[in-house]
Amino acid sequence: VATAKRSVGRPRDTSIDERVLDVTRSLLAHQGFDQTTIQAISERSGIHPSAIYRRWPSRIEIIEQVVFPGLNSVKVKPTGDLRADLHRFIRAYASTLDAPAARAAIPGLLAAYQSSERPRTSQSDWVAVSARPQFVDIVAAAPRGSIDPHVDIDDVFDTLLGSVMARILVPTVAGRDRPVERLVVMTERLLMPLPEKPS
Amino acid sequence: VATAKRSVGRPRDTSIDERVLDVTRSLLAHQGFDQTTIQAISERSGIHPSAIYRRWPSRIEIIEQVVFPGLNSVKVKPTGDLRADLHRFIRAYASTLDAPAARAAIPGLLAAYQSSERPRTSQSDWVAVSARPQFVDIVAAAPRGSIDPHVDIDDVFDTLLGSVMARILVPTVAGRDRPVERLVVMTERLLMPLPEKPS
Repeated sequence: VATAKRSVGRPRDTSIDERVLDVTRSLLAHQGFDQTTIQAISERSGIHPSAIYRRWPSRIEIIEQVVFPGLNSVKVKPTGDLRADLHRFIRAYASTLDAPAARAAIPGLLAAYQSSERPRTSQSDWVAVSARPQFVDIVAAAPRGSIDPHVDIDDVFDTLLGSVMARILVPTVAGRDRPVERLVVMTERLLMPLPEKPS
Repeated sequence: VATAKRSVGRPRDTSIDERVLDVTRSLLAHQGFDQTTIQAISERSGIHPSAIYRRWPSRIEIIEQVVFPGLNSVKVKPTGDLRADLHRFIRAYASTLDAPAARAAIPGLLAAYQSSERPRTSQSDWVAVSARPQFVDIVAAAPRGSIDPHVDIDDVFDTLLGSVMARILVPTVAGRDRPVERLVVMTERLLMPLPEKPS
């Protein structure tokens, strides 16, 4: 019944989605995470809360969609030149998370993940979902012999994720120069074959 | 004058410091970062706000002192066995940041560092200040030949800091098994001498 109903109804108004996302992005950047409530989004966008709740279960999912979809557009098609590919990927990844709305939102999202503001659903959680496959593709395209077959690619990606986060959010880390180059060097080291063990 | 005045006055009542820190720890763990205000600390501890403000410029410094002093007690005296030393250091470091008060406080502190809640003072900022020297000591005690002389130890520590933070705060990363062992392997890889470049 639900399916039939949807197919004969009006097409979903995507302009509402866009308006909600635009207003949320602006609220995050200018008012901060705490002020970015469904109430505030509704007032600024002129869209009734019930229409917003029909599309998203809570403000958290709206904020995630604002902060992280950029990662889907981090289209870093692997060329097989590992260093160049990592450089483009890491630069794009870091700049997505460094945007004003993302910078304002990430600590709030981290806090929400610790609390029960949203139940954890391991598959839909956080940035890893969208950027990890691209990273895996880059590693897969690297020349034979340049990647240690024993390395755990998820561990390397998790390390990269944490490092980017620290460089954006932690003052002592953020203050260092050439952040992208440093991350590229670290990531290359984590991926390369190990030297022979000294005996 | 101030010095003379201090030397003839009553000795500083350290029990006030302890009471403030204990109450703050409890508030963080049970009420969360936002509720851990000077007002709340005052009410719970029975210590007047003016006495609190004489000791700390804002709640941020109290919270940092609650969350991070554990790092000073992360006494990991280097033995020269790099893997064992890293394992003890990383386990202690991660468990300090994983305590309930720390877990509740870190996202709030990260948010505060992004806003103007506290001016940035690069020397007094964040965890790096207390655990970094211990990490440097461990690396310095490692056997000759086990550390790449070209590696930037600060970069490795920053990477470790970000990785620990991600493992504590980001659900997709936190879900992986054997976190300390994974971090030890990553850190060892970042420190070891590079293999000869394949030609």
